Parts: sequence; structure tokens; C-alpha cells
Amino acid sequence: MKAEIIAVGSELLTPDRLDTNSLFLTEELNKIGIEVLRKTVVGDNRDLLSEAFRDALNRVPLIISSGGLGPTEDDLTRETVADLLHRSLRRNDNILRYIEGRFRALNREMPEVNVRQAMVPEGAEILENPRGTAPGLWLEDGGHFIVLLPGPPRELKPLFREQVLPRLERLASSTRMFHREIRVTGLGESHVEQRIMGIYKRFPEVNTTVLAAPGETQVHLRIWTDDVEHAKKTLDEIVSGFEIALTDRIFSQDGSPLEEVIAAELTMHNATISAAESCTGGLLAQRLTSIAGSSLYFLGGVVCYSNELKTAWAGVPAELIQAKGAVSAEVAVALAEGIRRRVGSTFGVGITGIAGPGGGTEEKPVGTVHIALAHAGGVKERGVRFPGDRESIRFQASQAALDMVRIHFLYNGKQPSIRA
Amino acid sequence: MKAEIIAVGSELLTPDRLDTNSLFLTEELNKIGIEVLRKTVVGDNRDLLSEAFRDALNRVPLIISSGGLGPTEDDLTRETVADLLHRSLRRNDNILRYIEGRFRALNREMPEVNVRQAMVPEGAEILENPRGTAPGLWLEDGGHFIVLLPGPPRELKPLFREQVLPRLERLASSTRMFHREIRVTGLGESHVEQRIMGIYKRFPEVNTTVLAAPGETQVHLRIWTDDVEHAKKTLDEIVSGFEIALTDRIFSQDGSPLEEVIAAELTMHNATISAAESCTGGLLAQRLTSIAGSSLYFLGGVVCYSNELKTAWAGVPAELIQAKGAVSAEVAVALAEGIRRRVGSTFGVGITGIAGPGGGTEEKPVGTVHIALAHAGGVKERGVRFPGDRESIRFQASQAALDMVRIHFLYNGKQPSIRA
Repeated sequence: MKAEIIAVGSELLTPDRLDTNSLFLTEELNKIGIEVLRKTVVGDNRDLLSEAFRDALNRVPLIISSGGLGPTEDDLTRETVADLLHRSLRRNDNILRYIEGRFRALNREMPEVNVRQAMVPEGAEILENPRGTAPGLWLEDGGHFIVLLPGPPRELKPLFREQVLPRLERLASSTRMFHREIRVTGLGESHVEQRIMGIYKRFPEVNTTVLAAPGETQVHLRIWTDDVEHAKKTLDEIVSGFEIALTDRIFSQDGSPLEEVIAAELTMHNATISAAESCTGGLLAQRLTSIAGSSLYFLGGVVCYSNELKTAWAGVPAELIQAKGAVSAEVAVALAEGIRRRVGSTFGVGITGIAGPGGGTEEKPVGTVHIALAHAGGVKERGVRFPGDRESIRFQASQAALDMVRIHFLYNGKQPSIRA
Repeated sequence: MKAEIIAVGSELLTPDRLDTNSLFLTEELNKIGIEVLRKTVVGDNRDLLSEAFRDALNRVPLIISSGGLGPTEDDLTRETVADLLHRSLRRNDNILRYIEGRFRALNREMPEVNVRQAMVPEGAEILENPRGTAPGLWLEDGGHFIVLLPGPPRELKPLFREQVLPRLERLASSTRMFHREIRVTGLGESHVEQRIMGIYKRFPEVNTTVLAAPGETQVHLRIWTDDVEHAKKTLDEIVSGFEIALTDRIFSQDGSPLEEVIAAELTMHNATISAAESCTGGLLAQRLTSIAGSSLYFLGGVVCYSNELKTAWAGVPAELIQAKGAVSAEVAVALAEGIRRRVGSTFGVGITGIAGPGGGTEEKPVGTVHIALAHAGGVKERGVRFPGDRESIRFQASQAALDMVRIHFLYNGKQPSIRA
């Protein structure tokens, strides 16, 4: 079954508010095999609202709407949908008594405007909403289903789970969506695409999306089927193909971010890490410590912007900085080895580079970053030139540093060089 | 003029991704008097995409779309719109050379798939995109304007500002939206609302929105008028009222984030800062260095998770940690004074706390954070208990630390205590 989501409310057409209910609704619908074909946000305007519902009815058998069920003049969803389906609105005295009771419980009198919320289109089923005043409504019309939900997420979510899902489950087929998310770093969107195109094209029943994200490329695989075994087998086969095509560039097969992958590796290996950062300014430490339980593997780090602090905190010889420049392979290595030694950690990371927008030269343009990883067996260094703005360069540098740790574990420290 | 926004991409119809570009686009359009009537999210499907553009063309003179301009098979916006307008697609060799050049500059070869991005519908104007491979496109058709923009926000935003806005400004009416964004920290949404309600309600022509954001509350004021003087006078009057009602809790009147405000203060006063962070794990350093030119005021910082490193790097006496606990006012003060002394900066910040989810006790529950600011005149300390999850507690702690610096400058260091 296919569905569309309509979010109603003029505030959702301002720069301040985003419709977030649709993420929840999409997830819940997908789980029971219902695909969302379109999302529409429309203001509190009767004509535009009516058109949005009419168009959607022409395309799909199921419409889920949120918002516009409030008590005020600009809450028009109830009236508009009743009009569109040629149903009259009738006052439901049970709802009215319930709303009056809610106000009474707060020692307030029900304002007259709230009577609107007790109006129900003929033939609609009432979806009780114990967390708010407006009930949801379930309408069937010529083989179509229209579900009207209140806008506040804390009302919409439980109401959907408790009252809409059971009804939809009776209608939906046994088809379900199965999903895998592969994450890749060190290869851009188009390179990933080129390497895997030949594989996923052999499976036209699987919906494949390649997405560029900061410092990584994400590949989403989705298959809709009622055959669990078939779904698992197909997705496994594609992912096996990807593993060959993308070699060691895949860092996650379940959508977890790179810092989480590294946190798990470090914890599993009972290893610790420290960092001496220049251009990333604490971003690497921040990502490493964003994971709950990070004190198990992260002892500390320094952000040494000035040359003096590179010397004072990571023991980088002043002459080395003088000779090679603060942004150099040699200084990155010295930072990594120095911080590892001083902290006494299994790994030491050193990052130095030019995040921009200023500070670039012809020889060392903005985006030039040197990253080193020191460990008991030695030290590895990578010089990269990252594209993008300051924020993007800093993120990519932290990503590349985390990836060096991942590669180290992958090859048990036996991999001599890391490919870009 | 009225507009619709179409966000293209199957990933935007999954539970993983939300279209956020439309917030930026709405704001920019509103500023030049263009109202957004509808937002549509549609997947990478030629028929559905075509229908979405066709329907929108029937309703409004201006369509702004984002996404679907990538190099892959499922990037269909270009082809679909060309089809719909009966325009042929032609390869533009300038674009092709530009794309090849981008890959060359990164020492990579252009994958063959990227040739798609050089295809341009007949009669389209090219909107150059120096931050990505896909250019934007500007099409005019029978009095309608269609603007196709790339999906990544860091490409879309500057491209829109630099190339689309000037074109739209020539078309738009003289009515404009005037906007102020007041940012407040240390007061929750409902407290802000309660203090300012009486002020903004006196100006019904001004649309006022109070929004909760991490570590701060934002108040948006919007007025639509063709009278610049009237707009300015009205907004000034409201903001003056807010300044009285919210006292020193306002940190920004132009929407700039707190780290930017602090960066400006430090630079202006020729002051420097350093930080010794525990629970924030580098987040404060990262925020301070996220601003271009941060090396002027930021020399360095340490992330000292372990007690040993608190002693080694910030000179916190081991006995003090033993006696008072790592999370204590005394250790925060010692961190701030120690890092200031070692770095030789004007200010030193010390942060120690329990970000959770583990580590809380009855006496010091999750969310307990001590923050200290040391300067030549002495040291201030604040103990706070922040609500929320790990990420939220860490952000609020970094926000509170930055706010202590702001308050110090505001009162020239003469303010003895800081209110929560």
C-alpha cells in the first residue's frame, strides 16, 4: 500500500518550524510495509488544503494528515475534509463532555471555541486522544482511507501507535520493508556509485540510494517483500558485492557513525587513545567523547594552536617546527608520538593543517592537513588536501584520523600504507 | 509573489532524512517579500517528480527545487524539468571542463557518470556552484520561474544568496519581510514567553515566535511591509522592551551564535582564552575554534578526562581531587587557574561535570557541572545541574562557560555573581 503525508499549519511554512512528525509516521508506516510517496506541507487555507487532499486522493489509497484540528478559526482540516467528501459535520456530545471534563479538571471553564473540536464528519470513526483535546479521525471513502491526527508530537505519536497502527495492520499486506545502511569513507559519492552500480543494478527490486554526507558516503538499500528469507539473502548478496567493490572503505553496515565504530574497536581491544589537535581545534576529542562510556578509552587530549604549546604539550621540537613548518608531515608525526608518550595511551593522534578561510599559501593551500597515528609498532602519516569550507575541512580531517585507527585495527597494524 | 518549494530525493521520504533546506529558502524568500505557499517532498521517480512540478506551475509563478542534480542514475530533476518544458538537454562544455578541473585539483580523475551534471536544458541560465560539481539552473517559461538548486546545504545556501537572490529581487514587489532574531541564554522558553508576552502582544502586525533551542531561547520578530522606516521603528521599539524584560540574558540581536559573540569580544579586547575541559571533552575548544581567525584569541586547551591529566596538564593538586572529588567547584577553579597560568592567556576556563548517562550519584546526579572562569582579577565559579541527555548536557555546559565570558565583558569584570 502507498501513502502520502500532509502536514497542515501555516507555521510550518515559516523559517522557524519544520514538520518532524513525518519522520515518525514514515518509520511506522514503512515497518508495516506502507511506502510514503510524497510529503506535503500546506498552510491554514481552505482552498489550498482542499486541493492538497483532493490531489493526494487521486494518487494513493491512504492519506495521513497532522495538524489543523485545534479550536481556533484557522484550524480547518476537519471542515475541509468533510466538505471534500460531501459529509456533514455533526456535534458529538461524548467528545464535548470529554473536552469540558478536561477543562474542569484544570479548574477552568471550556472556552466556547472548543466546541469546534467536538464536530465530527458523518461516518468518521473517532480516535480518542487522552493527551489533548482534539480527537483524531478515521475516514473511509470509496476505498480510500484518510486519517486526521492532531499536530503536537506528544499527542500524535501515542495516538498513532495505539489507534491507527492496529487499523492499518488489518489493511496492509504482509509486505514489509527491509533496510541496510552501508557507510563509506575516503571515497566520494560518484566514485562509490561507479564502483557499486554494476552490483546493485542486477537487483532492480532493491531500492538503492547513494548519499553524500560530511566526510562519508552512505548507501541505503531497501527491499519491500513478504519473504523475510528472500530479503535477507538478497541484501546479504548485495552487501557482499559491495565489500569486494569498496574493499576496506566500508566502515559501517548498520548506519552507525565512525566515532561509534572506533569507540567499539578501542573498547573491545582494551586500547586507549589521545590526541594533539591543531586545525581541528578539539573536534576529534569531542567526537571521541560524545559516546557514552568514552572514559574507558579516552584519557585526554590537547588543542595546541600556537607553536609554543605544540612544544610544551606534545614535545614537538621548536627547531622542527622552524625547519618544516607547523603544517607538515614531520610535525604531525611529532604531535602523535609526543601526545602518546605523555598520556601513555595505546594510540596517539596528531593533526595539523589549514582549515581556512585564511592562512593558505601556494605551496600549502587551505585544506592541506597532515594526520599521524602513533602506536607501539611505529607511526603512520597521511597528507591530504580536503575540499570545502572551514567546517567541512575540520570534519573531514577528524574523519580521516578516526579512519586511520579503524584501518589499523582492520589489518592488525600490518597495513603499511593507507589509500586515499 | 508566491512560491512553492519542491525538495527532491527518495532519501527525504525515509525515516532518515528531513528536508532542512526549505527553512533557509523560506527565510530568504520571505526577506524579499515572497511568500511560500506549499512545500512538497517527492522521491526520485520521474512521473511523480514531473507531476509535482506541473501542479506547482499551475499554482504559483515561482518554483524553487533542491536536490536531484547529482551525477547518478536516480538524479532526475534536470531531465524531468527539461521534458516537462519540452526543452532538449545539451552538454555544456564549460561546465564539463569545470567539473574535470575540480577532480584534477584533488588529483583525481572525473568519473564518467559526472558528465550528466554538464547537461543543461535549452535556454536555461547556469548558476555557477564553486562549492560543488552540479551547477544550479534558472529557467523561465511562460511567465513562470523555475530554479533548480543542488541539495547539499553548503552548496545550496551560498549559491542561492549569490546568484538567485539578485535575480529574484528584480522580480519581487516592494513589500519586504523585516526580521530580528533575539537570542537569550539562561532562561527557558516559557520564562522568556512570560516576560515578553505583554510587550509583543501590543504589536499585532508583528509575527512573534518564541523557540527553544539547545542552550538558548530564540525570539523571532517578523513584519511584512513596504515601509522600511516603519518596520525599523516598530522592531526597535519591541527590542527595547525586550532589553528591559530580559536584562542581560540577551546575547545576540542578529541571530549570531554565542561563540561568535565571544570571538568578537575577545578580538576587540585583544584578549586570549584557554580551556581545561573534562565532561565537555573538547566541545568548548571546538566551538571557540569554529570561527575563522580564532588563532587570534585561542592559544590552546586541554581535555583532561583522567585525574592524572588534570594534575599533569592543569596543575590540579591530586590531594584536592581526592578531597573534593573530580566534579567539584574547587577542581573547576583549579582547572581554570591552572590552564590560564600554563598557557599565559587572559582567561582560563575550567569545566568538570557528569554528562551521563552513567556516573551519577545521589549527591552528584547526571547533569551536575562546575564551571570556572579565571582572569587577572580572580576567579568565578558556577555549579549547575543541567537537564537532558549527554549531548544536551555537554552543549549547555559549553554554553554556560561562554556566557560567563560574555557577562565578564558586559560588566567589565565588576559583576560579583552570575545569575542562573
